[in-house]
Amino acid sequence: MEVKARVVKMAREAKEASRGLSGLSAKIKDEALFRMAELLEKKGEEIIKENRKDIKYAEDKDMPAHMIERLVLNPVRITEMAEGLRKVAGLKDPVGEIVSGCRRPNGLEIMKIRVPFGLVAMIYESRPNVTADAVGLCLKSGNSVLLRGGSEAINSNVAIARVLSAAAYERHIPRGCIQIVDDVSRDAVEIMMLADEYIDVIIPRGGADLIRSVKDKSKIPVIETGAGNCHLYVDKEADLKMGVTVCVNAKTQRPGVCNAIETLLVHKDIANKFLPMAYQGLKDHRVEIRGCPDTRRVLKGIKRATEEDWYAEYLDLILAVKVVDTAVEAIEHINKYGSRHSDSIITQNYNTARQFLREVDSACVYVNASTRFTDGGEFGLGAEIGISTQKLHARGPMGLSELTTTKYVILGEGQIRQ
Amino acid sequence: MEVKARVVKMAREAKEASRGLSGLSAKIKDEALFRMAELLEKKGEEIIKENRKDIKYAEDKDMPAHMIERLVLNPVRITEMAEGLRKVAGLKDPVGEIVSGCRRPNGLEIMKIRVPFGLVAMIYESRPNVTADAVGLCLKSGNSVLLRGGSEAINSNVAIARVLSAAAYERHIPRGCIQIVDDVSRDAVEIMMLADEYIDVIIPRGGADLIRSVKDKSKIPVIETGAGNCHLYVDKEADLKMGVTVCVNAKTQRPGVCNAIETLLVHKDIANKFLPMAYQGLKDHRVEIRGCPDTRRVLKGIKRATEEDWYAEYLDLILAVKVVDTAVEAIEHINKYGSRHSDSIITQNYNTARQFLREVDSACVYVNASTRFTDGGEFGLGAEIGISTQKLHARGPMGLSELTTTKYVILGEGQIRQ
Repeated sequence: MEVKARVVKMAREAKEASRGLSGLSAKIKDEALFRMAELLEKKGEEIIKENRKDIKYAEDKDMPAHMIERLVLNPVRITEMAEGLRKVAGLKDPVGEIVSGCRRPNGLEIMKIRVPFGLVAMIYESRPNVTADAVGLCLKSGNSVLLRGGSEAINSNVAIARVLSAAAYERHIPRGCIQIVDDVSRDAVEIMMLADEYIDVIIPRGGADLIRSVKDKSKIPVIETGAGNCHLYVDKEADLKMGVTVCVNAKTQRPGVCNAIETLLVHKDIANKFLPMAYQGLKDHRVEIRGCPDTRRVLKGIKRATEEDWYAEYLDLILAVKVVDTAVEAIEHINKYGSRHSDSIITQNYNTARQFLREVDSACVYVNASTRFTDGGEFGLGAEIGISTQKLHARGPMGLSELTTTKYVILGEGQIRQ
Repeated sequence: MEVKARVVKMAREAKEASRGLSGLSAKIKDEALFRMAELLEKKGEEIIKENRKDIKYAEDKDMPAHMIERLVLNPVRITEMAEGLRKVAGLKDPVGEIVSGCRRPNGLEIMKIRVPFGLVAMIYESRPNVTADAVGLCLKSGNSVLLRGGSEAINSNVAIARVLSAAAYERHIPRGCIQIVDDVSRDAVEIMMLADEYIDVIIPRGGADLIRSVKDKSKIPVIETGAGNCHLYVDKEADLKMGVTVCVNAKTQRPGVCNAIETLLVHKDIANKFLPMAYQGLKDHRVEIRGCPDTRRVLKGIKRATEEDWYAEYLDLILAVKVVDTAVEAIEHINKYGSRHSDSIITQNYNTARQFLREVDSACVYVNASTRFTDGGEFGLGAEIGISTQKLHARGPMGLSELTTTKYVILGEGQIRQ
C-alpha cells in the first residue's frame, strides 16, 4: 500500500478505536498498563536486538557519541520504561472529572466534564523511551495514539510499540488504539499533518526545527513543546553565592535538556564581583563562556557573543553572558530572545521579584531557584508528555489532564429558549 | 505605507502595549469600559452616519435584505452595545486567579496563575456589534486586540473602534491596545495569519468558509468558533410532545444562529406518530422539510434530502429529517455529519440518555432541552466571545477565562536540582 493510504488507514482505525477507549474505567486501563510493563520486561531481549540495528546504523553513519548514547536500550532502560508505565497506572484518571457545574435559573443542570481528545499524534525524535511514555500517558487519558518517531530509532520504536499494543489488546483495550508509522520518509509526517478528519491534536517533541516545521504546516491543532532558551538574571540585590550555585546547577546539572539555561544576565552594579565568582564555578564544569563587551572587560580572554548567541539553544556546555543596566533591560532581553520556557531571577528585592514574575512572558518564571525544576515530576503532576511553550490549551509541563479536553453536558426536562 | 508594513506595525504596537495592559487592575479596566460605553452613546450619531455608508454600499450591491438588516445600526443598537460594555465591566476579572498551587517537598512554592494571552486577533464578518463585544472582552481580560471585520461593515467598524480606543486611552489604558485593520483586501488577513511574532491567538468568527480558511493558513494558534450543524434526536422512548416543542424551538426561535438545529433524527418506532406532529408544528413557522426515503413515506410530498443536506448548515428555515433504526445510528450520524457544536436527545430512557451524552463527540450535549441554550449568557459565563467547536484550549461558549492562558510562578530560596 502506498504511504498515504497506510497512514490514513492507521489514523482512521485509531480514531474509530478511540470511541470505545474513551469510556473505559480506570481499572481496565490500569490493568492494561501493568500488563504492558510486564510484557515489555519479558520481551526486553527482543527489543534490545532491534535496538542494535539502530545503533549499528547510527555508528555506520558516524553519528556523534552522545547522540548514540541517547539511542541505546539496555536491560536497565527497559526496566525504567516498564516502571514508567506502572507509575502512570498509579496516577488519577483525569477522564470524567467534573471541572465545574451549576443549576441555572431555568432548571437546566450544566456540567463541564473532562473527556479524552480522541486521537493524539506524537511526532518525536531520538530517545526510544518516548514511545513507551507517550503510549502510557495517552492510554491512561483515554486517547488513541498515532506515533511517528525519528528514523534513527525506527527499529526500536516499532518493537516497543508492537509489544505494548499486543499487551494492551490482551487486556480489553480496543484494537487499533496504538499505532506506529513505520515509514521514515518525510511524506508520512506531511500526511499526518493534513489528516484533520481523524487526528485531534499533534504534539511534536524534539528539536526547534521539527517543532517549527510542524507548527507551520499542520492543519491540525498543535501543542508546541520543548524548545528551551532559558535565562538566569542575577540582580544587583542578589545573594551572589546563591546566584553562583543556581547558575552552575541550571547550566551544568544536565546541559542537554530544555530547562537548562543558555544565557546569564548580570546587573552592572555587581558584574565586577559576580562574574569572576560565576566564572570560577563554571570553569570547574568546563563551560565555555561567550560574553558581551562588558562581560569581556571583566573576564579577559573569553569569546565574544554575537547576536545569534542570544537566540541560541546550545543544549551543551556553553553559556552566553550579558551585563544589563537594569532589571527592565533583563526582562526585555528575555522577552525578545527567549523561547518562553523557563526563566529565573536571583534577588532579595521584593518589588524587583514581583516585576520579574509579572513581566517575563514565559511558561515558568522563578525567583531564587534553578530553572531545572520545570518538569512534570518536579511540579507534582506525576508524569509529563512534554513542556508546552505555547499559550493555547496548556502552558508549561503537561500531565494527564493536559491530554484531555472538556465537554458540556446539559440535563433538562423539556426547556426551550424564550 | 503598503498594507503589509501597516498591519505588522499595528500588531507590533498592540503587542507592546499589551505588556502594560496585562498588569492593570480591574478598577482601571472597568473605568475604561464605562467611559467607552458613555462615549459610544455620545458619538452614536457619528457612528450611525458612517454606518449609512455601509448600508448604501450593500444596497447598491443588491445584498439580500436579511443581510442588510444585520448591518444596520440605530440608536437602540448603539445603546445595546454600550450596555454590553457595562455588563463586561460588572464581570469578575479573570487575570491573577490562582488556578492551583502547592508547596513541594523541597520547599518550592508553585502557583499556576491566570494571565492574559497578550495580543488577540479577531477576524469576523457582518454585524458591527462584534467590534464592541470583542474590544470589551479583550480589554477586561487584559489583552490587546487587533480587529479585522468584514468589508461590508468597514465604515461602521472603524468608527466604533475609534470611539472605543479614544475612550480607553482617556482612562489610562496603554495607547495601541485597540487596533483595527481598515484595509479590506484579502492580503491584510493573510498578513495577520503570519504575524506569529506578535499575535498570540487568532479567533475567526463567521461563516464556515472563513473559519476553514483561517484554520488552514494560520501560523498562529486558532480558536475555531461558530460553525453549527446541530442535531435533535427524538428517541423511541421520548415524550413526543416535548420532542415537538423542543424541535420547533431549536429550529425556529432564531434560525440564523449557530445553535439552531439543522437536522432532526427520529427513531423508526415512533416515526409514523411523531413525524406528522412535528410537521404540523414546523409548518406553522413555514419550515421547509427535506426528508430521507423513510421520512417521505410518512410525510408525502416533501423534498428529498441529499447527502449534502446532512452536512448543511442552512441558517435558514429548512430542516433535514432522517429516520434511524437505533440510538447508535443517530449517534454515528451526528459524529459523521455534525460540526461538534450542540446536539440534543429527547428520551425518558436513562441508559440511552447516558450513552448519547458519552458518545456524541460535541462541545455541548443535551438531554431533553433545546440546543438554543448553547450561549455564554445562558451558561452563566456572563458574556461570550464565541463558541469553540475545537477541542484545544476551550470547547463550547467562551467567556473571559477562555481569553486567558496560565503561567507558573515558582518561589524559592536558592533551590537547585540534584
